[in-house]
Amino acid sequence: MNCQNIIEDTYTYIKSIENKGNVATYIPELGKVDPAHFGVCLTTNDGTQYTAGDANTLFSIQSIAKVLSLSFALSLGDKSIWQRIDVEPSGSAFNSLVQLESENGIPRNPLINAGAIVVCDILCSHLKEPKEELIAYIRDVANNPGIHYSETIAQSEKSNGYRNFALVNFMKSFGNIKNDVDQVIDLYFHLSSIEMTCCQLSKTYGFLANGGKQLITQKEILTRSQSKRVNAIMQTCGFYDEAGEFAYKVGLPGKSGVGGGIVAVLPNSYTISVWSPKLNERGNSYRGMKFLERFTDTTHETIF
Amino acid sequence: MNCQNIIEDTYTYIKSIENKGNVATYIPELGKVDPAHFGVCLTTNDGTQYTAGDANTLFSIQSIAKVLSLSFALSLGDKSIWQRIDVEPSGSAFNSLVQLESENGIPRNPLINAGAIVVCDILCSHLKEPKEELIAYIRDVANNPGIHYSETIAQSEKSNGYRNFALVNFMKSFGNIKNDVDQVIDLYFHLSSIEMTCCQLSKTYGFLANGGKQLITQKEILTRSQSKRVNAIMQTCGFYDEAGEFAYKVGLPGKSGVGGGIVAVLPNSYTISVWSPKLNERGNSYRGMKFLERFTDTTHETIF
Amino acid sequence: MNCQNIIEDTYTYIKSIENKGNVATYIPELGKVDPAHFGVCLTTNDGTQYTAGDANTLFSIQSIAKVLSLSFALSLGDKSIWQRIDVEPSGSAFNSLVQLESENGIPRNPLINAGAIVVCDILCSHLKEPKEELIAYIRDVANNPGIHYSETIAQSEKSNGYRNFALVNFMKSFGNIKNDVDQVIDLYFHLSSIEMTCCQLSKTYGFLANGGKQLITQKEILTRSQSKRVNAIMQTCGFYDEAGEFAYKVGLPGKSGVGGGIVAVLPNSYTISVWSPKLNERGNSYRGMKFLERFTDTTHETIF
Amino acid sequence: MNCQNIIEDTYTYIKSIENKGNVATYIPELGKVDPAHFGVCLTTNDGTQYTAGDANTLFSIQSIAKVLSLSFALSLGDKSIWQRIDVEPSGSAFNSLVQLESENGIPRNPLINAGAIVVCDILCSHLKEPKEELIAYIRDVANNPGIHYSETIAQSEKSNGYRNFALVNFMKSFGNIKNDVDQVIDLYFHLSSIEMTCCQLSKTYGFLANGGKQLITQKEILTRSQSKRVNAIMQTCGFYDEAGEFAYKVGLPGKSGVGGGIVAVLPNSYTISVWSPKLNERGNSYRGMKFLERFTDTTHETIF
Repeated sequence: MNCQNIIEDTYTYIKSIENKGNVATYIPELGKVDPAHFGVCLTTNDGTQYTAGDANTLFSIQSIAKVLSLSFALSLGDKSIWQRIDVEPSGSAFNSLVQLESENGIPRNPLINAGAIVVCDILCSHLKEPKEELIAYIRDVANNPGIHYSETIAQSEKSNGYRNFALVNFMKSFGNIKNDVDQVIDLYFHLSSIEMTCCQLSKTYGFLANGGKQLITQKEILTRSQSKRVNAIMQTCGFYDEAGEFAYKVGLPGKSGVGGGIVAVLPNSYTISVWSPKLNERGNSYRGMKFLERFTDTTHETIF
Repeated sequence: MNCQNIIEDTYTYIKSIENKGNVATYIPELGKVDPAHFGVCLTTNDGTQYTAGDANTLFSIQSIAKVLSLSFALSLGDKSIWQRIDVEPSGSAFNSLVQLESENGIPRNPLINAGAIVVCDILCSHLKEPKEELIAYIRDVANNPGIHYSETIAQSEKSNGYRNFALVNFMKSFGNIKNDVDQVIDLYFHLSSIEMTCCQLSKTYGFLANGGKQLITQKEILTRSQSKRVNAIMQTCGFYDEAGEFAYKVGLPGKSGVGGGIVAVLPNSYTISVWSPKLNERGNSYRGMKFLERFTDTTHETIF
Repeated sequence: MNCQNIIEDTYTYIKSIENKGNVATYIPELGKVDPAHFGVCLTTNDGTQYTAGDANTLFSIQSIAKVLSLSFALSLGDKSIWQRIDVEPSGSAFNSLVQLESENGIPRNPLINAGAIVVCDILCSHLKEPKEELIAYIRDVANNPGIHYSETIAQSEKSNGYRNFALVNFMKSFGNIKNDVDQVIDLYFHLSSIEMTCCQLSKTYGFLANGGKQLITQKEILTRSQSKRVNAIMQTCGFYDEAGEFAYKVGLPGKSGVGGGIVAVLPNSYTISVWSPKLNERGNSYRGMKFLERFTDTTHETIF
Repeated sequence: MNCQNIIEDTYTYIKSIENKGNVATYIPELGKVDPAHFGVCLTTNDGTQYTAGDANTLFSIQSIAKVLSLSFALSLGDKSIWQRIDVEPSGSAFNSLVQLESENGIPRNPLINAGAIVVCDILCSHLKEPKEELIAYIRDVANNPGIHYSETIAQSEKSNGYRNFALVNFMKSFGNIKNDVDQVIDLYFHLSSIEMTCCQLSKTYGFLANGGKQLITQKEILTRSQSKRVNAIMQTCGFYDEAGEFAYKVGLPGKSGVGGGIVAVLPNSYTISVWSPKLNERGNSYRGMKFLERFTDTTHETIF
């Protein structure tokens, strides 16, 4: 059975079962999305794409973008990053502030909010125009000049992001934010506002399946070693307190966002993205998780 | 460069650098071990072994044995196991009791002490003679009738294991221990007392690199799916609060013990064991971690 | 209006309102008590008693006895007690094990379970026959040779006291238990099994309203300074995570037990006991709390 | 021995022993204070004052002012206050954010930072010009039109108060802040900036020893019942994680500030203030605590 058939069969099956969970509503814009959306795109390392459903509809990738800001910071060669952010799983969402307090303002990893905020602070220290240079970097990685921030989403995040304001101020109190808190959090809210389609997403993140090199052009985004390490971080920290469950059931490194998107990587082979807005109780796409579990059960290909 | 050369070169290099850390002393027997011991054995899926140093000296594998009790429980087909134990990383050693309290006596995963104690309780529910049947199972997996408990270590664990007594009673208070606490903890202390050499260790755990099948005989120890899942659990939970660091720097699923042993797996390829008694500040073998990091840096083969 | 009238009026009013909450059932014996029981006894410093309802029915005083074991330990002059137990409120019931872990096995105060277990350990270190000598001490303080342990309750506590076994083993792992855990916990379970009537209770604890001296005989149980300090500890720590609420609404130092008893003290004036088995959601007698709040609202006499 | 003699003797003795601890330096202005300052003033309910040392030097009363904002909120009759703030001790400084998270943004009590910020939010909801009306209220209670905010201190708090910004945003994320966070925190920083002398302090707080009535004028600041309850809150929550220790050693309701001031109350008798800038490791005035302990040891008058 070829890849397109497996994608389609899995898609059809998952679409036939109950679409459980709830769309994120902590910002009004996310709450407006049609919960019936469901799209998939697998991009192999040679650039071939296999799709199903709403694979070309734009959605808010939210926290998935944290992998790109991390990649940018790594490519800038900042030496302080692993002194200022750990690489351990966070244990649980519940613990985020607890751990931050007992660990003196050092976030557990760069993919939780606190860690991504420190990454934004690092970017602010290195860049003259952080917002402009970050989106330029992401367009470059995506090989697509049309990728953009959603100002509507960014402003909505800002108007409702009290917990993120709390995080940045709390870390500033420990000395782990070097720049002005308003500048840092503004960059963070913009990072969270980026929109992509499933096809753009799996293509953009293809370098992580390709030893750090952009698909087709083979341009180096990260070194092979950096790329492996980003995959390792996604594996252990990419799904909040469901990282172990995802490793256990799916077996691929990946990252989810509250917009209902997930991207996952089989190193040396392919990158796959799924989007379905309803979230399970741990904040990951309900259908996205089910799809990937069934897909890897069928292909028998995982990193384990 | 062939495998034996890489093993030897890496061994020689690591032996030449400072042997930092401290031997575990929480039970007197472990404290008596010569800290200069250092052995390595890599067993490929065809059964070939490459060694360096003290690869044939017996040592206390301690928590590494938790993977075998888990495998035994999985092979018994108990349906309740994933209701009674989660598969998420524990966040940090510090949190173990905190999390157990806030999560109503459900351990975070089967490789921390609390989780392994619940696994022992499950074994007690299924087996008539738990201690005898567990060692018989392990001898069978190891294909070696000489594997044994160390009664000296088991008694020493018992005389000093107040925190483990606390854990089993605490979980009993939540109803997550079904058998008599003394029977369960006795099985747990015996499990922790097993001794192996590096060569025995990498051979015994070879089934995890071989899709669940014993090396050479191809006898099924676990199904392919179960085997992948045990690897996923080792990947996210095998090194206490250094799981992320190990994933980041080494990139293989593995498990460590406070006796200074580590076993790690490259699926479909090989199993490697390292032993050096001095532990780093997170309780994992100092030289063992360094060796595996350098070894995978050289071979460029990781799951990521 | 005289004291007897206020006691009777308050009693009648509280009896007329809904008897909310639940009888403790964690040990079967407590669950068998008739929830309609309701008794009160106020003993003035001159020994006069004012009563209402079931003031002469025996009930399990449970944790209220922790004040007597503390008094005994203080009278033995052990210097280590305040190095091994703190005098701070515990914050909340939820935190007990959390705090014990982060504070290296030092209980927050001598009136929570962990602290009372350390007090029992101190008694075991000083006494040849701890169980016999403790009950003898309590009979002496009560000036009543009939006070006794309930073996039924003590055995029932033992059969169900997994969390207390967890606590004693946990503290032993930190070195804060010096004697055999089984001996210590046996003394603790016996301490918790003592039975008194309301009239016995307010008379026994009368020394805390009387500058440390037994009522009528004026025999010194504690020095004046020790007596004040026990009152201060009851004030800040006597009601688990409802200590502040009790101070706020009642304004007297006191101690509650899960048997539904409460004893409270107005220094230099009187001691009052209330018993009603149904507990509010924080584990204190529902009617007992209501009674004392209304009583002090009427008398206008509090320590504040 | 009369009161003046006891004050002087105690003062002389405490001045003769080592002046341990450190001046607070988290804002530069506090760090500039001469650590040798030491003043005491006791005001009896008839208005008589007994003093020693620097009793008429202005200092930053810091958190002591939280009692006045609480009194103001109580006098405004807001019904929601005890739904939005608890009255339990906080357990420990360490736990503040932990507890706030696990308790859904409800502060433990109105005297910790988080609770005082909610009180400021309540004032913002009731007042048109919160800053002006708060200082007017305090002048009225103090019967002294000269009491003022220190703009220097308030601005310094603002420039360094990242943890307080974190708190207000964190509670806003739980919906427990109703007004604009910037307005609320500005009022809070001004509240923290008030300066008084020891003599002003013990006179201003005299209403808490006087059944809620201003000394001399007998004007009602709080009802008798409210006054008792504020004393009860100070008793259980006035000294962060040293509340139990203060109750145990001193035995009076009171409140401390990081400027080195302490005010304490013996109901129906007197109010006493002490000021010495060096703080012990729990953030309370080193000499202040020692003075009050020795003073009440001498007078034998405590609430217990």
